[in-house]
Amino acid sequence: MKKLKFGLSAIGLAVGMAATGLSLPAFAGGPTMSEKDFEETNLKYFQRCAGCHGVLRKGATGKNLEPKNMLKKGQARLEKIISYGTEGGMNNFDDIFSKDEISKLATYIQMEPPVPPEMSLDQMKALTKQFVPLKDYPTKPLHGRNWENFFVVIERDAGKAAIIDGDTKEVIDHIDTGYAVHVIKGTEHHKKDHAKDVGRFWYTIGRDGKVNKIDLWQKPGKMLVAETQMAYDARDIAVSGDGKYVIAGGYWPAHFVIMDAETLEPLKVVSTRGYNTKGEYINEARVAAIYTAPNESAFIVAVKETGKMLQVDYTDLDNLTITAIESAEFLHDGFFDPTGRYFQIAANASNKMVVVDTKDAKLEKMIDVDKLPHPGPGANWIDEKCGPVGGTTHLGVGLVSVWGNDPINHPDQAWKLCYEVETDGAGVFIRTHEKSDYVWADQLKHPEPEVQQSVQVFDKKTREIVKTIRVTEEEGKAALHMEFNQDGTEVWVSVWNRADAKNPTGEIVVYDAKTLKEKKRIKGLTTPTGKFNVFNRANHKT
Amino acid sequence: MKKLKFGLSAIGLAVGMAATGLSLPAFAGGPTMSEKDFEETNLKYFQRCAGCHGVLRKGATGKNLEPKNMLKKGQARLEKIISYGTEGGMNNFDDIFSKDEISKLATYIQMEPPVPPEMSLDQMKALTKQFVPLKDYPTKPLHGRNWENFFVVIERDAGKAAIIDGDTKEVIDHIDTGYAVHVIKGTEHHKKDHAKDVGRFWYTIGRDGKVNKIDLWQKPGKMLVAETQMAYDARDIAVSGDGKYVIAGGYWPAHFVIMDAETLEPLKVVSTRGYNTKGEYINEARVAAIYTAPNESAFIVAVKETGKMLQVDYTDLDNLTITAIESAEFLHDGFFDPTGRYFQIAANASNKMVVVDTKDAKLEKMIDVDKLPHPGPGANWIDEKCGPVGGTTHLGVGLVSVWGNDPINHPDQAWKLCYEVETDGAGVFIRTHEKSDYVWADQLKHPEPEVQQSVQVFDKKTREIVKTIRVTEEEGKAALHMEFNQDGTEVWVSVWNRADAKNPTGEIVVYDAKTLKEKKRIKGLTTPTGKFNVFNRANHKT
Repeated sequence: MKKLKFGLSAIGLAVGMAATGLSLPAFAGGPTMSEKDFEETNLKYFQRCAGCHGVLRKGATGKNLEPKNMLKKGQARLEKIISYGTEGGMNNFDDIFSKDEISKLATYIQMEPPVPPEMSLDQMKALTKQFVPLKDYPTKPLHGRNWENFFVVIERDAGKAAIIDGDTKEVIDHIDTGYAVHVIKGTEHHKKDHAKDVGRFWYTIGRDGKVNKIDLWQKPGKMLVAETQMAYDARDIAVSGDGKYVIAGGYWPAHFVIMDAETLEPLKVVSTRGYNTKGEYINEARVAAIYTAPNESAFIVAVKETGKMLQVDYTDLDNLTITAIESAEFLHDGFFDPTGRYFQIAANASNKMVVVDTKDAKLEKMIDVDKLPHPGPGANWIDEKCGPVGGTTHLGVGLVSVWGNDPINHPDQAWKLCYEVETDGAGVFIRTHEKSDYVWADQLKHPEPEVQQSVQVFDKKTREIVKTIRVTEEEGKAALHMEFNQDGTEVWVSVWNRADAKNPTGEIVVYDAKTLKEKKRIKGLTTPTGKFNVFNRANHKT
Repeated sequence: MKKLKFGLSAIGLAVGMAATGLSLPAFAGGPTMSEKDFEETNLKYFQRCAGCHGVLRKGATGKNLEPKNMLKKGQARLEKIISYGTEGGMNNFDDIFSKDEISKLATYIQMEPPVPPEMSLDQMKALTKQFVPLKDYPTKPLHGRNWENFFVVIERDAGKAAIIDGDTKEVIDHIDTGYAVHVIKGTEHHKKDHAKDVGRFWYTIGRDGKVNKIDLWQKPGKMLVAETQMAYDARDIAVSGDGKYVIAGGYWPAHFVIMDAETLEPLKVVSTRGYNTKGEYINEARVAAIYTAPNESAFIVAVKETGKMLQVDYTDLDNLTITAIESAEFLHDGFFDPTGRYFQIAANASNKMVVVDTKDAKLEKMIDVDKLPHPGPGANWIDEKCGPVGGTTHLGVGLVSVWGNDPINHPDQAWKLCYEVETDGAGVFIRTHEKSDYVWADQLKHPEPEVQQSVQVFDKKTREIVKTIRVTEEEGKAALHMEFNQDGTEVWVSVWNRADAKNPTGEIVVYDAKTLKEKKRIKGLTTPTGKFNVFNRANHKT
């Protein structure tokens, strides 16, 4: 069996991928293709399909695509499904792939999936770089700007993070990061520990496992200070309460890595492979999301396929204590309640919100919601009847579900559905602010451009939609992800340039949080996605 | 690729193995054999070689045997090594395998290793049986015997456990167990929790992963009360301090399983696959040994290849807390200190004794000892100069190493070598008793029959060998493993009928613990191995 390179190296995205090899599957009988085509198609599968179906094609959010199932469907049917999608939730790809590419993907999934290589701690260490030595870190901001109102913005298809001055709306830097960064997190205020200069350092995690450290006190052009790589495929990252450690989670290899937050030197790698809630072994048990507990010296690691929430005590890495909290599959993304004690996360294939009590490191409750909950950054606010509540959008239905989340003072309402708000389309992100009367929800998953380009706003008091805002009307564009500014007076919404994803033709539209009127359009951004306001994120204004 | 059955099913040892299948490696080019020969040789490899070299042949106690390395050596050289062994520690197999079998094994290890199947919790549940319903358990012993002086004895090659009345020396039962039982453990006294009827229930773990529950209050012939299977290959088992849970560890799949101690119903399975101390991913990360902490509500799980000691809190299985204590490879077997706080375990490839503090769930110390330490049940006693000490035999050298193990009252001596005693041959087991003046060590690993058939006894006071006892002089027999009786007046030594392993021609020789003179020979046993005195084990008389 000949060795072929795995995935990303072909387009030069991953650091150090050239050294990794895997065995080409045996091609005797059955559907086949040339080695070159296989390698190219493997890369396309990895970039566009593996997220939902898994590298090993066992299925997760998407269906199982192992040859035993695919061979039954056959080439023609598979091509049709890839081209036009299905009722079951599969997207159409006829606007993303050519006919020839779709044909090859249909063949590829009828062949044995290649198993990608492992990654050792030594490999990660070899990929760790300091662009600015620690001794040269500034002791105060080197620019006169109000850095606590900076927005750190993912420019997804550019492999960059934009830094935007929230006061002046100027884009002051575009920083090179990993490919298709999923999340960026900064240091946050913590009940027990205290990170120095909270909100100053930010950490990006690329889809390719690349981790970058950003120093907001540096001058534009100098903000990227360190880099490493901790996986070939990754999704989330977090910083410890004391600011000492960064943790990032891999899709492949299925593990999490704890790094020194100063240098990004990888210190500890822990496998997440294991058994799901039914007691079946899962080799591709991917880390979907990672958070820092605001009150405990602990990370929260959500393992998608095993339905395990891992509460990882970071006070002693040599004697690492982890509580594996059994919940439901497939865990995706979540947010803390306002007290910082309870973590609320979507188990989207189970149509549940899972609540973990980080004080006692145990499952608090599971709340039944609708099809495929997905809160993104989430939203907490006060409801007149139910008291403190949390809410989520759903990938599978145009609906915001709202539940009580204050078991101490509102035990009767706690972890029960309080009410639901129907929206025009299924969405990905929900957001509010303590000073705002409104809750915002996007509708990114709706197939109609008109809906996909609009976000909806409902009133916390009346629980009714007060405005549908068409954020863009341009063809091939979509609206998504809301973030408030430092003082809660503005809401920033991203506009993806879907059809022109390689160029800086995306934008962020700024709305007045009170009047809901457009204030400003910030242009020159490539597929702007998640946006993180320094002050709000550092102070848990969720 | 055709499916072939894995391993043990061929000789009917494993329960439910028939359902498992694996892919036959591709045979194009290179050394090869028929499918039937491959299956038979695979089984032989599994029984005799996998213990040291691993199912995936990555190596552990033995060398890496992957095809890339084996093909270089070639057929003739490999046959020689298998036949006559090596200086490096490989045993000779010319007395165990025929020339034809050796030739096939040499070919087999040049071919790709087949990956054995996984085992789910549901599969284990389907293999769980009650021979005696709980409601029919007796409320007092059904025989008039002093069951606290019973010896539970492994009859290795018969797949049985013998129950011997320590007062009368009668063999009162031979109980069917898994194949080549490695360890049998009973309920023990615990500082916090309290098992009912301590010492009554005993649990066996077969090499084939079969778990059996023995009730010593039943009449002979009725003592086997429940059964399950938790792996295809396993080594150790333990019972929780409260007597509620049984835990067993797998070599393959690499996991541990927590069962209901009443019914043996499997409740929880946890993978041990993960990263070693160098940060390299290990798929075959085998559970070498499992113990119950006498003072904490915790199991101690030693993972051989990763060098991780897992302290598993069993108070909440749904929110399972595990501390992974980083130590050294390859962890093997160990014993608690007299206070029950410190666990002392051999990391035999690192030539270290690892000490874990179960109170704080952290590494206490690593002690450098000689080649391949192996304490078996271990020995603790009081030394006049060093105070409380522990000792180990070594697989690689005829030497007993003795270290201080009382950090509270003898901090200067704690976890430092106190002295060493040279013996005639490398051994596997060491043993003593608080009432005895002597420490006993066997010499099972020495190639000369004369030494292998003798155990050596040294004086705790003079630190010198006072007697070499030739336990047997019969050809093809060896002496191993010592156990004291309830009041510490007798020492029982096993005699393996190596060359006639299928017949009950082995014996146990009973010595007076004071005069060191032979008192009795208990005959009719098949390869008697580990022996467990109910009272001593239940009361931590180590």
